[in-house]
Amino acid sequence: MPSAPTPQSPAPTPERRLPGGPVLQDSVTQAISAAFFEELASVGYARLSLETVAKRAGAGKAAIYRRWPSKLEMTVALISAVAVDAPETVDTGTLRGDVRAFLADLANGLSHRLPSKIIPDLLAESTRNPELAQALLAAVRDPRRAKATGLLERAVERGELPTQVDRELALDFLAGPLYWRLAVLHAPTSPDYLDRLTDKLLAAFAA
Amino acid sequence: MPSAPTPQSPAPTPERRLPGGPVLQDSVTQAISAAFFEELASVGYARLSLETVAKRAGAGKAAIYRRWPSKLEMTVALISAVAVDAPETVDTGTLRGDVRAFLADLANGLSHRLPSKIIPDLLAESTRNPELAQALLAAVRDPRRAKATGLLERAVERGELPTQVDRELALDFLAGPLYWRLAVLHAPTSPDYLDRLTDKLLAAFAA
Repeated sequence: MPSAPTPQSPAPTPERRLPGGPVLQDSVTQAISAAFFEELASVGYARLSLETVAKRAGAGKAAIYRRWPSKLEMTVALISAVAVDAPETVDTGTLRGDVRAFLADLANGLSHRLPSKIIPDLLAESTRNPELAQALLAAVRDPRRAKATGLLERAVERGELPTQVDRELALDFLAGPLYWRLAVLHAPTSPDYLDRLTDKLLAAFAA
Repeated sequence: MPSAPTPQSPAPTPERRLPGGPVLQDSVTQAISAAFFEELASVGYARLSLETVAKRAGAGKAAIYRRWPSKLEMTVALISAVAVDAPETVDTGTLRGDVRAFLADLANGLSHRLPSKIIPDLLAESTRNPELAQALLAAVRDPRRAKATGLLERAVERGELPTQVDRELALDFLAGPLYWRLAVLHAPTSPDYLDRLTDKLLAAFAA
């Protein structure tokens, strides 16, 4: 098993050979990905230049276009690789444990140097760029939501939540207060805060 | 009492006379404010030009500088006028009523054409501009948070919440799930959703 990818080193793409074309080297793909995330955090989507990303990666622009046909498709592919493929909703055996692990993972992601700049930028850009917004909702929001639903379904199977638990609201509660605190208010969290948040969430789910 | 200001018509500034200077006309202040919000929603803070705002308002650039010394101070003053001075946390007589009214007001604001673009832009800009971030936290976040605390204190006084209610968490719950749903997921809400959200919030507060 490869270790969990981070924004600095996204999931290695398996070597691909285009029909009759060259092998796409993993090391180049990873250098481009790392350069892309640094650039995106630094200048934002609107001003991101694929030429600058290529230079930063020590590659040519063609190396990017051999992998992704456009800035939009590159962004969606690389963001979903770290935001969807990477995080696992761990099965800790209890709803409380699963919720606490989910919150720790989310707090960690939102506090990280790169996502803490990239996420707000992509949300702002999405209000001006409907094509990007749609692509990110389909490639990031929907699969992430499906994964988090798994956490609730496991609790239903264990008998910790009633079958008719309001999944829609539970998912908004799972991420909403912590996102609000970290990404909107820029207020601190602590292990104690996450413990108290876990207690409140379990009470809200059960209500 | 003037009617509650909206992003189109922010709170009229009382006529001010600078020492030995000209009267600052309310109608000009309002035209500049309206032009500012339209421009901010359209191009974002980074690309906002005071010259364009002045032109759009049919005024000169000097008319802006007579009122605000910089783009940053203009932004903080006009945003806090609509985000802090305007919304009243209504005392409906019950915690349930107060929460439901708060949520309806927030949903309304986040769905509005201008704030739905301006809020994500200012959050993204804040990650790149620490001076703006600090000014907005002090002028918008802190007073809004103080107002929302009033809603909780009224409930404590009525005996609807225990004295030791976790105010910090309760405030994150009050705004977080709805903000997550509307501003991050771009998922719909409905009166029924807000009713169910109110029920869950009351359960979480009481837990």
